[in-house]
Amino acid sequence: MAELPVPLQVLKSALGKLPGIGPRTAERLALHVVQSGSQWVKDLSVALVEAKERVRFCQSCGGLTEVQPCELCADPRREMTVICVVERPVDVISLERSNVFRGLYHVLGGKISPLNGVGPEDLRIGELGKRLSEGGVEELVLALGSDVEGDATSYYLAERFQPLGIKTTRLAHGLPVGRGLEFADELTIGRALEGRRALDLGPSE
Amino acid sequence: MAELPVPLQVLKSALGKLPGIGPRTAERLALHVVQSGSQWVKDLSVALVEAKERVRFCQSCGGLTEVQPCELCADPRREMTVICVVERPVDVISLERSNVFRGLYHVLGGKISPLNGVGPEDLRIGELGKRLSEGGVEELVLALGSDVEGDATSYYLAERFQPLGIKTTRLAHGLPVGRGLEFADELTIGRALEGRRALDLGPSE
Repeated sequence: MAELPVPLQVLKSALGKLPGIGPRTAERLALHVVQSGSQWVKDLSVALVEAKERVRFCQSCGGLTEVQPCELCADPRREMTVICVVERPVDVISLERSNVFRGLYHVLGGKISPLNGVGPEDLRIGELGKRLSEGGVEELVLALGSDVEGDATSYYLAERFQPLGIKTTRLAHGLPVGRGLEFADELTIGRALEGRRALDLGPSE
Repeated sequence: MAELPVPLQVLKSALGKLPGIGPRTAERLALHVVQSGSQWVKDLSVALVEAKERVRFCQSCGGLTEVQPCELCADPRREMTVICVVERPVDVISLERSNVFRGLYHVLGGKISPLNGVGPEDLRIGELGKRLSEGGVEELVLALGSDVEGDATSYYLAERFQPLGIKTTRLAHGLPVGRGLEFADELTIGRALEGRRALDLGPSE
């Protein structure tokens, strides 16, 4: 018994393929499974296959969905004239939780990153071009991260779709709401200063 | 779509019950599953149920096994006169890998820890007493961790089984092999000094 029993070795190896789970953590999780209630283990086993089989990417926006097209793309109450471009499917959920944006989405599936071998053709940029060329879109909101690759991708998209004459905007940079200056880095404070706005005091009596 | 699709929510919640996996990590893992190859997801799903169903605890030593009693307990080449007491089933594997110990094991399933509500009756101490009272055991090797709880458990076991007249030993403390003094804490260095041994130069010509 210098080794784990075979079923545990198999489980450890399968768990070790999850991102961020090394061999030691995989072993710990596998041992936890053996010592847990069997109902939970069955539930997890079924949930894995169910999620993999039932959740798909929307053929239009690229977001996560169980139906084609997804609920957002099929919702007639959404503004069809605005498309918000995001990097990952989860970004759609983050934006929706803010309850501010009422348009449609387009998931790129990543950022342009020459160092990682990711070019424009590896992302859903062709699909975006197709949606835009079908007409009716007036504004493209670029909601990519503000790291180097996110910025590069934003500029690439803005340039590529400039000939279509569609207004291109990007999310504002500034201080996080509810946080003081002490938690913000100097780049963020700089951007917040550049983007400062007049206080709206409302109509005076 | 302010929320994940339902199958993903179910998967996230099941993954979140693993030790050390918080809601954010669970979400990240669930999204990874949706975007992975389906063969691996099926393999993981099957491995979970297989491990849970096939791996049991040995009724004698408490180690992990697919058969009763486990291969170690059933092996006639092991020294039946020595029992090594460990905390967890994986500790057996660690000790076996060292290829030094040739006796039998007994897994306690934890340490005595009044703060966490773990008393002697919650551990497999009664089972150990039964094995010892059956006779034939000459030495009890206590291989528990050397933290406060491990030490307390070691002393508890030594006192409890003193009337049986069985020799009780515990693992030596000292410097890890292959490491210099600079990596050892002062307690370990102190124990290493106390336990110093004469250099065996072999028979002189």
